Amino acid sequence: MTVSVSPSANFSLEELDKLSLFHPVTSIADVQKNGPLIYAKAGGVRMRDHHGRDLIDLGAGLWCVNVGYGRPEIADAAAAAMRNLSYYHTFGGASNEATICLADRILSLLRERAGAGHLARVFFGSSGSDANDSAYKLIRYYNNLLGRPQKKKVISRLGGYHGVTYASGSLTGISAYHTAFDMPIEGVLHTACPHYYRFGEDGESEAAFSDRIVADLAAMIEREGPETIAAFIAEPVMGTGGVLLPPADYFAKVQALLDKHDILLIADEVITGFGRTGQWFGSGAYGLKPDIITMAKGITSAYFPVSATAVSQRVWRVLEEASPRMGAVMHGFTYSGHPVGSAVAMANLDIVERDDLVAKTAENGPYMLRQLQARLAENPYIGDVRGVGLMIGVEFVADRGSRRAFSAGLGPHRLVARHALERGVLTRALPFIDVNSFSPPLSITRAEIDEGVDRYVTALADAMPALHTLAS
Amino acid sequence: MTVSVSPSANFSLEELDKLSLFHPVTSIADVQKNGPLIYAKAGGVRMRDHHGRDLIDLGAGLWCVNVGYGRPEIADAAAAAMRNLSYYHTFGGASNEATICLADRILSLLRERAGAGHLARVFFGSSGSDANDSAYKLIRYYNNLLGRPQKKKVISRLGGYHGVTYASGSLTGISAYHTAFDMPIEGVLHTACPHYYRFGEDGESEAAFSDRIVADLAAMIEREGPETIAAFIAEPVMGTGGVLLPPADYFAKVQALLDKHDILLIADEVITGFGRTGQWFGSGAYGLKPDIITMAKGITSAYFPVSATAVSQRVWRVLEEASPRMGAVMHGFTYSGHPVGSAVAMANLDIVERDDLVAKTAENGPYMLRQLQARLAENPYIGDVRGVGLMIGVEFVADRGSRRAFSAGLGPHRLVARHALERGVLTRALPFIDVNSFSPPLSITRAEIDEGVDRYVTALADAMPALHTLAS
Repeated sequence: MTVSVSPSANFSLEELDKLSLFHPVTSIADVQKNGPLIYAKAGGVRMRDHHGRDLIDLGAGLWCVNVGYGRPEIADAAAAAMRNLSYYHTFGGASNEATICLADRILSLLRERAGAGHLARVFFGSSGSDANDSAYKLIRYYNNLLGRPQKKKVISRLGGYHGVTYASGSLTGISAYHTAFDMPIEGVLHTACPHYYRFGEDGESEAAFSDRIVADLAAMIEREGPETIAAFIAEPVMGTGGVLLPPADYFAKVQALLDKHDILLIADEVITGFGRTGQWFGSGAYGLKPDIITMAKGITSAYFPVSATAVSQRVWRVLEEASPRMGAVMHGFTYSGHPVGSAVAMANLDIVERDDLVAKTAENGPYMLRQLQARLAENPYIGDVRGVGLMIGVEFVADRGSRRAFSAGLGPHRLVARHALERGVLTRALPFIDVNSFSPPLSITRAEIDEGVDRYVTALADAMPALHTLAS
Repeated sequence: MTVSVSPSANFSLEELDKLSLFHPVTSIADVQKNGPLIYAKAGGVRMRDHHGRDLIDLGAGLWCVNVGYGRPEIADAAAAAMRNLSYYHTFGGASNEATICLADRILSLLRERAGAGHLARVFFGSSGSDANDSAYKLIRYYNNLLGRPQKKKVISRLGGYHGVTYASGSLTGISAYHTAFDMPIEGVLHTACPHYYRFGEDGESEAAFSDRIVADLAAMIEREGPETIAAFIAEPVMGTGGVLLPPADYFAKVQALLDKHDILLIADEVITGFGRTGQWFGSGAYGLKPDIITMAKGITSAYFPVSATAVSQRVWRVLEEASPRMGAVMHGFTYSGHPVGSAVAMANLDIVERDDLVAKTAENGPYMLRQLQARLAENPYIGDVRGVGLMIGVEFVADRGSRRAFSAGLGPHRLVARHALERGVLTRALPFIDVNSFSPPLSITRAEIDEGVDRYVTALADAMPALHTLAS
């Protein structure tokens, strides 16, 4: 049956949106009922919607606008690159200067700022999802080359977020992303979520919690057979899962376990890369030695879709040695190594370095955390306020004493985020546990932090009557 | 083990490339031995490499630079969009003007230029791979909502190219992309390649060939059980598989078969969309009524990574009706509906319309095809020269009379493409059959076509001694 939709003339933008756009991660019913919220303009940490409302974006989009919105240097770099070499691929040995410089720069940053001199080469794409999908494929390729066709399973963590392609979405450990999509695919396993505040048992110390969940992981590896496990994937700080910092010694213990069983470590630095934690990379911040590091978001501050998958010498050497018999590695995207994307990334990283945004994040992040902790300390529905750098989570509970969560589906954090929007501040309501996340542009000033926190605190006060109802 | 790579100072760009970049679809050994080929500048159909060599790009990159390189209007549009709203997501009902206008424009073009008024909504991403991966996920979601959890298999075609993510790469029907990656995944089937010249039997008419391969498809559907088949995916004109035009009545017969068994049709218009065939869409050119259409490449002429997945009313209605109970459709990319990408796409489509590039392609494509056919008619190693619009394939054979192919792996078309590069013309050597493809910017002039064809013919003459050796 054919049904024609109406032509576009004489419709408002809101109506056209409802008639034409399939929004990502959105309730169709909500948009059809309430319409979209149209964003019109942004500079620094501030945005305006279609109706001129002033907003402070304490989310930096989706944790991605590290240098802030509207940087003229980046716009100029993009336009110059488009005039010069608007596109060419990097298949079959084709290359371009900006992409070469970007690959070298990423490896140099990893070596000099994260102690990760063992990373050997960088593969490019255009999203965090494709970077993790590429990693998923490459570990299969690697183990097939090594004659270990049975060593293919990947262990991820409950609460981990690694994208939404069929493979990367399977790595994601949040069931909401799997429902009705037949995910995760076979061979992807999920181990315990490393969230001490929520999943620590009564009287259990953080170190004991860490020991317990690493023992769970060890048991999973033994149960499945270490010879079947190819890789373990983890965000250094879990983002979408709730801004979860690794518990004491967690990664050191995990890494020893992986080394023992010859299991690759994939560090998903899509959020943590390029300064978000107050260090250049989360791997450096937490002493990881990953075999593969995936990156996106902050690499261009989202001005242009670019992702990167860095592989270690250990992996690269296997690929390189097999190359004469295997021929080309038959994996690559049209936009892998896009010359404009690389030029945008270079201009973006110039700003990060020139404005010393990583060091600023190391100072302003703890300041913002202290402000939020102080202002939210008395709220009976906020159980935990935590963070590292400019990556902060505020976790809601129905009862502080027992850490009892709100009943599933009530969404106190969604309620508060809606009030925050009304008060002119953008924060995210995360899908795994009841957390509002804060991840502003790294360029945010203390005055802007104060103003944003003020607005959030006001919104929280607005929400209290509804929170009381939800909690009772 | 940790091995540090060398720092970047004092290396040439070629050396830095070899030390830092993991090229897509490239032989590592080749690049390590011969170095990369660095592209430096491009305008219209012409490029210069790092050493100043003049090149005509008869490939438009990877079939993607529809309006030609270096358009200042697009650079200006990108820079203006970055200054105004350098990024925002479209999750949770968030939106922006450029993306709304682009979604409406795509639906309007499909309705008015391809008779496809039944398309209802557009989902955005940033690559053809992610568009097909999204389609793969959506048909599972759709059938789960309909209570048909067993109806999930997807039939693709040998020679089809649909991307490289784990799911979209499984849809790809070219084994070179699967080797050592454990692909295709279970539930993806490949039916016959619709290439009459190569796979037609002696004495078989094109209509009989078409009947035979559609009967093969029908038998596959019966064998698997129609209740297990969710979708059939096809490029209207197969690109990477060899520039294969559908044989007589092929799609009409396929579509009748799909309708009979309630199997969705996915049209992969990543190459054919936006004018490549001399019509706006391949679906219009061949009378398809797809339930899902995937697009990328020409939507922005590759100036910015944007893909689109249009879904029909039939699919959308199921999603919309289920929305109140399902909540948000938990699929979406950070860069879905990127405001800069949408602004770039709008500027690109303005040029396509203003310069009347689709109509020009309908005239210049057949001209280029005639030129190639005339100039290559006497060559004993060229068996077929075919095409539609500016999408042309030149197929090599060891023996014209019998249509016998060169032995596997010899790659006569790769040899000729290397000679073509030496003579200053870029053509692609495809991975499925021995074909050089031609897909220049739609803005190419007849003088540029003549010059490009001249260079190719000269290169072919250069290659003749080596082709003799390969054929004997």
